[in-house]
Amino acid sequence: MSEIAADPSHPRYQSLLMRHRLEEAEKKGMLAGSALIAHGRGEAFDYLLGEQTIPSAMIATQQAVALMASANHPIISLNGNVVALAGKEVLHLAHQLKCPVEINIFYRTPERMEALLFHLNEIKQQEGLDVEIFGAEPDARIPGLEGPRANCSKQGIFESDVILVPLEDGDRCEALVAMGKTVLVIDLNPLSRTARMASVTIVDELTRVISNMNRILLSDESPQQVEKYQNAQILQEALAHIATFLSPEV
Amino acid sequence: MSEIAADPSHPRYQSLLMRHRLEEAEKKGMLAGSALIAHGRGEAFDYLLGEQTIPSAMIATQQAVALMASANHPIISLNGNVVALAGKEVLHLAHQLKCPVEINIFYRTPERMEALLFHLNEIKQQEGLDVEIFGAEPDARIPGLEGPRANCSKQGIFESDVILVPLEDGDRCEALVAMGKTVLVIDLNPLSRTARMASVTIVDELTRVISNMNRILLSDESPQQVEKYQNAQILQEALAHIATFLSPEV
Repeated sequence: MSEIAADPSHPRYQSLLMRHRLEEAEKKGMLAGSALIAHGRGEAFDYLLGEQTIPSAMIATQQAVALMASANHPIISLNGNVVALAGKEVLHLAHQLKCPVEINIFYRTPERMEALLFHLNEIKQQEGLDVEIFGAEPDARIPGLEGPRANCSKQGIFESDVILVPLEDGDRCEALVAMGKTVLVIDLNPLSRTARMASVTIVDELTRVISNMNRILLSDESPQQVEKYQNAQILQEALAHIATFLSPEV
Repeated sequence: MSEIAADPSHPRYQSLLMRHRLEEAEKKGMLAGSALIAHGRGEAFDYLLGEQTIPSAMIATQQAVALMASANHPIISLNGNVVALAGKEVLHLAHQLKCPVEINIFYRTPERMEALLFHLNEIKQQEGLDVEIFGAEPDARIPGLEGPRANCSKQGIFESDVILVPLEDGDRCEALVAMGKTVLVIDLNPLSRTARMASVTIVDELTRVISNMNRILLSDESPQQVEKYQNAQILQEALAHIATFLSPEV
């Protein structure tokens, strides 16, 4: 990795960097068994987007930032892959938004929770960030989900009004929408149930999205909602973009 | 896994079975670090095909079987994922075709080679199959490739005229084509360099393809080449299929 890290101009730099972060996270026990396969699925969809932020994704990103910035109780939900791939960047985002984060993982074990919390707290200290991290002691449940997956924090996800859930599964996205929350997702598959259920769907790669969000918040202007935002339109534009990429005529 | 193995009607049965096979192979040291991510990429493309063998893929499969059956020195090249996902089925195919197989892996280490050879020889014995397995002692090189990746067996891949290479990388596919071989590939991404370089490209999921090939060979008729086979047309049809799957109108 070291020679690659030294050369961001390498054509596979970004992809190898993400892989390196996942390997490191795996060693620390932060990931579920399905994490690498899920990442590979993402890689394929990103390939079909041309590994770029398409215009409709930037509109959705703008909308998501504006909704987070104007929320009463915004929160960012984190799973293992998000912490592994963009833990630092997400904590910077939460710091800028003055919102908490909550670790909310599908395959919940005490060991994984501890590894994720330790990693996030380490980043928080190193970067000098002021971010509340929920997840250690869940004291509420998301209605409609079964088992440990339903666990959440009352002051965190449960009471949030706007929630950013990168790389979420369909069931939980649906359950959060059913709670009346505004659910903002990052999902590279525009056909997934998560993508279709969400209030705002950003069809883009996680680290590009978080970096775009941080950039929007760092600019002087306060983020504005998109006029007449229509998520179905955003999804159609992502699908059309991929279809063009695949078009035999090209 | 046990309760899933008992219920092939489970909607995720096939996907979970493949994942289980990869987990087992990983424990045995058969896989490269990138194996699970590569599998995830395949899952995404298969999703876009509707997880089915599309008509153009069946035509390419028919063509590939006919070319293997009529070759002078056919061979099947195997990597870690192929052995993990379809080791048994591939050995049955080789047995039916009376052709050898050769382990030819990108990240070659003595440990991985040994684990793969051991696994294949175990299957061979259990199933009572008569298949020569090359790869243990490479004594030739594929021109145009560098390092251990170029290693192959003189009596195996080097002298073959028709070679079936499931899940191949683009470089090696190109090098094999440059040697004048008829190269048959299984690749779920119809846009990949492998897919575009090959003589015959089967855009379909590995285990479905091998199962289709075994079925064709078990039928009474001897496999016939497709009239006026055009690989570019096969690729276009796969792309068109995916584009339709993604079409916002649907």
